[in-house]
Amino acid sequence: MIPLGFRFGGARCGLKNKRNDLGLIVADAPCAAAGVFTQNLVRASCVDYSQSVLEPGRLQAIVANSGNANCCTGAQGAANTRRMAALAARSVGCDPSLVAVASTGVIGRQLDMEKVEKGIDSAVKALGADPHGFMDAILTTDLVEKQASANVGQGRIYGVAKGSGMIAPNMATMLAFIVTDVVLEPAELREALIQANEASFNRTTVDADTSTNDMVLVMGSGASGVKPSAAQFGAALNEVCVSLAKQIARDGEGATKLVEVVVRGSEDPERIARTIAESPLVKTAMFGCDPNWGRIMMAAGRAGVPFDVSQARLSLKTPSGDFTLFKGGEPTAYDPKAVSAALKADAVLIHLDLGPGRQSTIYTCDLGYGYVRINAEYHT
Amino acid sequence: MIPLGFRFGGARCGLKNKRNDLGLIVADAPCAAAGVFTQNLVRASCVDYSQSVLEPGRLQAIVANSGNANCCTGAQGAANTRRMAALAARSVGCDPSLVAVASTGVIGRQLDMEKVEKGIDSAVKALGADPHGFMDAILTTDLVEKQASANVGQGRIYGVAKGSGMIAPNMATMLAFIVTDVVLEPAELREALIQANEASFNRTTVDADTSTNDMVLVMGSGASGVKPSAAQFGAALNEVCVSLAKQIARDGEGATKLVEVVVRGSEDPERIARTIAESPLVKTAMFGCDPNWGRIMMAAGRAGVPFDVSQARLSLKTPSGDFTLFKGGEPTAYDPKAVSAALKADAVLIHLDLGPGRQSTIYTCDLGYGYVRINAEYHT
Repeated sequence: MIPLGFRFGGARCGLKNKRNDLGLIVADAPCAAAGVFTQNLVRASCVDYSQSVLEPGRLQAIVANSGNANCCTGAQGAANTRRMAALAARSVGCDPSLVAVASTGVIGRQLDMEKVEKGIDSAVKALGADPHGFMDAILTTDLVEKQASANVGQGRIYGVAKGSGMIAPNMATMLAFIVTDVVLEPAELREALIQANEASFNRTTVDADTSTNDMVLVMGSGASGVKPSAAQFGAALNEVCVSLAKQIARDGEGATKLVEVVVRGSEDPERIARTIAESPLVKTAMFGCDPNWGRIMMAAGRAGVPFDVSQARLSLKTPSGDFTLFKGGEPTAYDPKAVSAALKADAVLIHLDLGPGRQSTIYTCDLGYGYVRINAEYHT
Repeated sequence: MIPLGFRFGGARCGLKNKRNDLGLIVADAPCAAAGVFTQNLVRASCVDYSQSVLEPGRLQAIVANSGNANCCTGAQGAANTRRMAALAARSVGCDPSLVAVASTGVIGRQLDMEKVEKGIDSAVKALGADPHGFMDAILTTDLVEKQASANVGQGRIYGVAKGSGMIAPNMATMLAFIVTDVVLEPAELREALIQANEASFNRTTVDADTSTNDMVLVMGSGASGVKPSAAQFGAALNEVCVSLAKQIARDGEGATKLVEVVVRGSEDPERIARTIAESPLVKTAMFGCDPNWGRIMMAAGRAGVPFDVSQARLSLKTPSGDFTLFKGGEPTAYDPKAVSAALKADAVLIHLDLGPGRQSTIYTCDLGYGYVRINAEYHT
């Protein structure tokens, strides 16, 4: 399943409790590589650092930690990021300019570099074909590990991701690390990543809050010798990124279900879908299994995009049925109890059809007590 | 306290349980009047109707109901709105073109006009100087009644409002009804209302969700004979509107505290303040009394407005102290326990200073379990 030419390792060094918190992905040789990064103005030093080392489009290793975002930590924080890269480079035996750094966790605390150093040493010793130790090392409030893979002819793509809260649109997003063994130039990799990111992570929102530390990195070892077309690779990368994005939405903090919002028609279906997906009233209704189409129409109406309400058709789709609730400007004669029962599914699709035109999808989740518990009781 | 020339009445007619649900404000004679209305594309028929009757700037009565928003109810809903105005006009003894209609409650159900008719009859019988019966009739998930008053020389302004959820920016907002006995032309009233609304209701957000039924109406009887200057009246109206807006934010669904977000400097301090005020992670931190300045800086950074992080200064102000948490690009050496204890206050001010320039305030509240409970368990 893992593409040729990569090893994964994870270790527990004490940056957080009970779980791994330091991870390494190491390639056998320098790879073509590309990345996309958070659009937040307040960025962790690892984001600046990794963006800078990726300019020539080459990477041999990624070092990532959880438990501490190393953000808003000034000059000392930036020095610690550089030191993490240097320590990983020394352990791996490559140049520090070939190492990207990613951090996630609490904002505003200095990294304990003694722990980080020990963690890197242990993670190097753990390097191998099994990615679970690495996956565990990048999780924070995530409940489940997130991985996805696809074939590109005889070649492979494999990706892992973390993300559960502070998940939002308009960015290059969350942490995701994708490796492939097909043969690609850095520019091809970069172009495919930008497109796949736009169709996946940038269409995912848990709470509309964009993190300071988001990044998606992709490395291509070329070890399979397979040379795919741009379209072929793009489709496979897209599949991996959309799968990871949906896993992130479904594992949103406190979430009980994946909610896909699909809007067709109008000048800007994405903006309408995003407004519905970010509406706290829609999200709490989904948590309560409440077929409250009025809140969905309210959210669509406040998106600032003109449409003809009398032509709108709103449906909820679940594995147990497809229910049209609103049509021709008025509610249909649906059975609220039947729809409510169907909404107990762990995946719901909200489909708003506004007439002919483009269609846009946003991935989100419901909003329940768990989101409040995690974010009100998780003290800094 | 109530301005001269107005009477209030409320009654329970069965549109909702246990509380009044039909209210009337009646002036002794036709008044100068003005209104501002929701910017949501999906609007209840009462919004269209009231906006239309207000065009000549005259009103003698307002009839309002809670328990049913009469929104997305098609031609029958629009006919019911006109009928509500006609019934109120007949009871009051004025022309229907002098009656505004406001509704709030569940979207997508037809009004039971038999109940409405009985309610109007009872509310007319209850008309008098005491506004409590009316106030009660417009509440939905509100926990407290909301009123405010101010003097304009020897004249008076008095306002009541409802609003607790589906409360959001960029609109002419919620339900608020303001009466005054000073002498003003409709155009003067309208100008003052637009300005006061911009500084108050339009700066209030509970959940970023704009209702389909929001309206603020103001009526001036002129009965005091006082003729204020525009500045004098504007200041008094502003005072009433800001007080009502803060009462609405503090009574936000599930809220335990009022949160005022003040941002100074940058090209667009309002946009930064609004992004902080709408951030679920900031709002849950406030609920948890967690001095999580990292989330506030994250939200500021995702607002899309450039600023220099190294020049930013972030403080939390409560009745028990003023705490600077972030300055010069790094956290200060504050005492988290002391700040957390101070955040137990029922009003917190988040102050982000980005340097010289304009200052902007947004009124909001925290996000707690109560919001989820009210909105997930309140089935349609």
